[in-house]
Amino acid sequence: MKYPNNINKVYQKMATYSNRGMDLEEEINLTNEYYVEKNRALIYKKPTPIGLADVSYNDKGRIINRAYFKEPSTLDYNGLYKGKYIEFEAKVTQNRTSFPLANIHEHQITHLKRVLEHQGIVFLIIKINDLVYLLKGNDFVEFLNHNNRKSIPYDFIKETGYLIKYGFNPPLDYLNIVDEIYKEDFYDKENC
Amino acid sequence: MKYPNNINKVYQKMATYSNRGMDLEEEINLTNEYYVEKNRALIYKKPTPIGLADVSYNDKGRIINRAYFKEPSTLDYNGLYKGKYIEFEAKVTQNRTSFPLANIHEHQITHLKRVLEHQGIVFLIIKINDLVYLLKGNDFVEFLNHNNRKSIPYDFIKETGYLIKYGFNPPLDYLNIVDEIYKEDFYDKENC
Repeated sequence: MKYPNNINKVYQKMATYSNRGMDLEEEINLTNEYYVEKNRALIYKKPTPIGLADVSYNDKGRIINRAYFKEPSTLDYNGLYKGKYIEFEAKVTQNRTSFPLANIHEHQITHLKRVLEHQGIVFLIIKINDLVYLLKGNDFVEFLNHNNRKSIPYDFIKETGYLIKYGFNPPLDYLNIVDEIYKEDFYDKENC
Repeated sequence: MKYPNNINKVYQKMATYSNRGMDLEEEINLTNEYYVEKNRALIYKKPTPIGLADVSYNDKGRIINRAYFKEPSTLDYNGLYKGKYIEFEAKVTQNRTSFPLANIHEHQITHLKRVLEHQGIVFLIIKINDLVYLLKGNDFVEFLNHNNRKSIPYDFIKETGYLIKYGFNPPLDYLNIVDEIYKEDFYDKENC
C-alpha cells in the first residue's frame, strides 16, 4: 500500500542521485506512483508472471520454495487514463545506433496489434543513447510491416518517436506526450 | 503463448466435467481465453505479485529459490473491451446468506473507487449458492457508503447484482451482461 510519505521518501532519493542513476524501470515506476498520488492516471507494472514449482506452509503462511519466470504475453505496464485503456512496454538498449527487436517477444507484438484493433492506446518507451522516446504502437507496426530488419534504427526512433524529457516531479512525464499525440482519442461524451 | 488447439483441449475438458467441477477462476480464465481467441476482448488475470527473496543463476537461466506472496493493490482481472478499460475481482463464498467483505482488501476498495473516478468499468463477480452475479462497482460503493456491515447480504446481491448464466462457449459470458448494463459507456466517435 502506498502512503504519501512513501512518495516523499522516493523524491528525496531522486534529489540525491541524477536521473541517470536510476534505471528506466525505476523512473517509470516513480512516475506512475506520482500519477496515482496526484489522481491523474492509474497505471501499474504487471507483476512478472511466475510459475510455482514448490509451495509449502508454515505457521506464518505460504512459502514459495521453488518457482520459475514465465514469459509474459502482454506488455509490462497497463492501466487507465481519462477513461481510456493504456498499455506500454519500456526497454533500454545500450546499442547506440539501433534498438534490437529481440527485446520485444513475438507474442507481445501480436498482443500489441490486438490492443490497437480493440481501440486501446499502446506504445513503446525506448531509452537509447540516454534519451527516452515514446514510439506509438501503430508506428511500430508500420515499421515492422515495411522492414525485414532485426532492429529499429536510431534515426527512425528520433524521426517517428517523441522525446520524453526528464523532469523532477515526475521523472518521465510520458502522459504529457500522450495528451498531445492521442488528442483525438480523448473525446468526451459531453463533447459529443 | 496461446494456440488454437490449446483452446480446443480445454473445451474438451469442459465437456467432460460439469461447470461445477471447475472453480470460478478456471471458468473465468476459460471465458477470457475464449474472448481473446474470438477477438471480442483482451482481458487477463494479473499475475499474483510475488516478492523475490533469493534468486540464483544456473546454465538454464534464473531460478527462484525463495519468494513470498505480496498483497495486490489492484483487482485480479483487467483489460480492454470495445475501447474501454475493464477491471474486476472474482470471488467465491461458501456462505449461503451473505458475502463476507473480508474477501476484498481495503486498498482494493480504494483502487476500485479510483477506477470509477477515472471512468473505467469496474465490478465484482461473486459466486454464492452456486450462482454467479455481477455487482457493478458503483452499486458496491453505494452499499459500503450506506452500511456498516462486515458482509453483503445475499438478498442485496440478488436484487442489485446481475445473474451471469452458465453456458458452454464460453462458460461465464459476463460481457453479455456488461453490454447491457454499461450500454451508455460504449458510445462511439462515429456515433458522436
